[in-house]
Amino acid sequence: MKLYGYWRSSAAYRVRIALALKGMAYESIPVHLVKDGGQQHQASYQELNPAELVPTLVDNELTLNQSLAIVEYLDAVQPEPALVPAEPKKVALVRAMALDIACDIHPLNNLRVLQYLTGPLQLTEQQKTAWIHHWLNTGFQALEQRLQQSAGRCCFGDAVSLADICLVPQVYNALRFGLDMTPYPTIQAIYQHCNSLAAFAQAAPEAQADAQ
Amino acid sequence: MKLYGYWRSSAAYRVRIALALKGMAYESIPVHLVKDGGQQHQASYQELNPAELVPTLVDNELTLNQSLAIVEYLDAVQPEPALVPAEPKKVALVRAMALDIACDIHPLNNLRVLQYLTGPLQLTEQQKTAWIHHWLNTGFQALEQRLQQSAGRCCFGDAVSLADICLVPQVYNALRFGLDMTPYPTIQAIYQHCNSLAAFAQAAPEAQADAQ
Repeated sequence: MKLYGYWRSSAAYRVRIALALKGMAYESIPVHLVKDGGQQHQASYQELNPAELVPTLVDNELTLNQSLAIVEYLDAVQPEPALVPAEPKKVALVRAMALDIACDIHPLNNLRVLQYLTGPLQLTEQQKTAWIHHWLNTGFQALEQRLQQSAGRCCFGDAVSLADICLVPQVYNALRFGLDMTPYPTIQAIYQHCNSLAAFAQAAPEAQADAQ
Repeated sequence: MKLYGYWRSSAAYRVRIALALKGMAYESIPVHLVKDGGQQHQASYQELNPAELVPTLVDNELTLNQSLAIVEYLDAVQPEPALVPAEPKKVALVRAMALDIACDIHPLNNLRVLQYLTGPLQLTEQQKTAWIHHWLNTGFQALEQRLQQSAGRCCFGDAVSLADICLVPQVYNALRFGLDMTPYPTIQAIYQHCNSLAAFAQAAPEAQADAQ
């Protein structure tokens, strides 16, 4: 398997966690999202992933984008440890929480959106930070409330799931942008627990060959 | 089952299509996203869905948010017609295309984001429309290219899948905001085909009791 990613991309980070948890070997191919105007926009990468986003997983004849689809694919071809439960109600709740992050928080604060805010819209650094914090706080408030129903050491009990795989990169991103995490003790505790596990350490941005 | 939704919400529209395709009966409970400062922010709804977004499905003791999680849940409890294929590679590609819309297009143009643009950021109507069209065009360009590999009368061959369930509400939204669809002939053909099916007609915003 080949994983096209970038050390600091939340979406690529999710896939690295899943690969590490499952102990699956892969070749990491860095796509620098800033250098050369963004290598994700080069024709060779665009052919692989028309959306010009990372990550992309190549597994023989399969070329697959979208981190959540990739993680569930890995879960199907290498079922241990399971990252989503088998029972319909349980898997639905895990997926919903993963999507709370992947649809309702992350897309608003990723690189291309921030570039539009400071480019065409000419927002100041202060306005940009307010935007980032607004969507992080909106999402984390809801998540902190939901976790009261489901959390143990992880988002759902004590076993790592797709929800934790989304949560950890999102918190990493929030800390990078200086968000005050004090209002979110449950989220913080899960973040700390997950990061004490070897697979999460191995998948961390700073542990990647292309980290700067 | 009870579905809390709003006639013009793309995410609620997706769930309505799935319910209609499967012929599942449900009680529709409108949550008006604009009236009274937005009924999704009222305490009774916030308790049901801490994110204060629609849709929410209630099925006995299960309270479930996130349209994609809901559609896959419906597919598990009522398997016919199947909305995702069984084979791991095939389901991964269907999910990826659904997420191309649900993560990379829709979250940037939904109501709360547009309210932030014209509220705190004081964008003009012209700037707001440019923002909407920018993200629609970015997403549709990639999608039109991907569909060359997979499309028949639907996104994947001739059978309706989760990808079509996401595509149709997104095109409806694009037309509402006056996007020129000429560059996307494959997307347009799929939109027209799907809308010729009874389930899509039944789920359309204008067919809902709360339509204005």
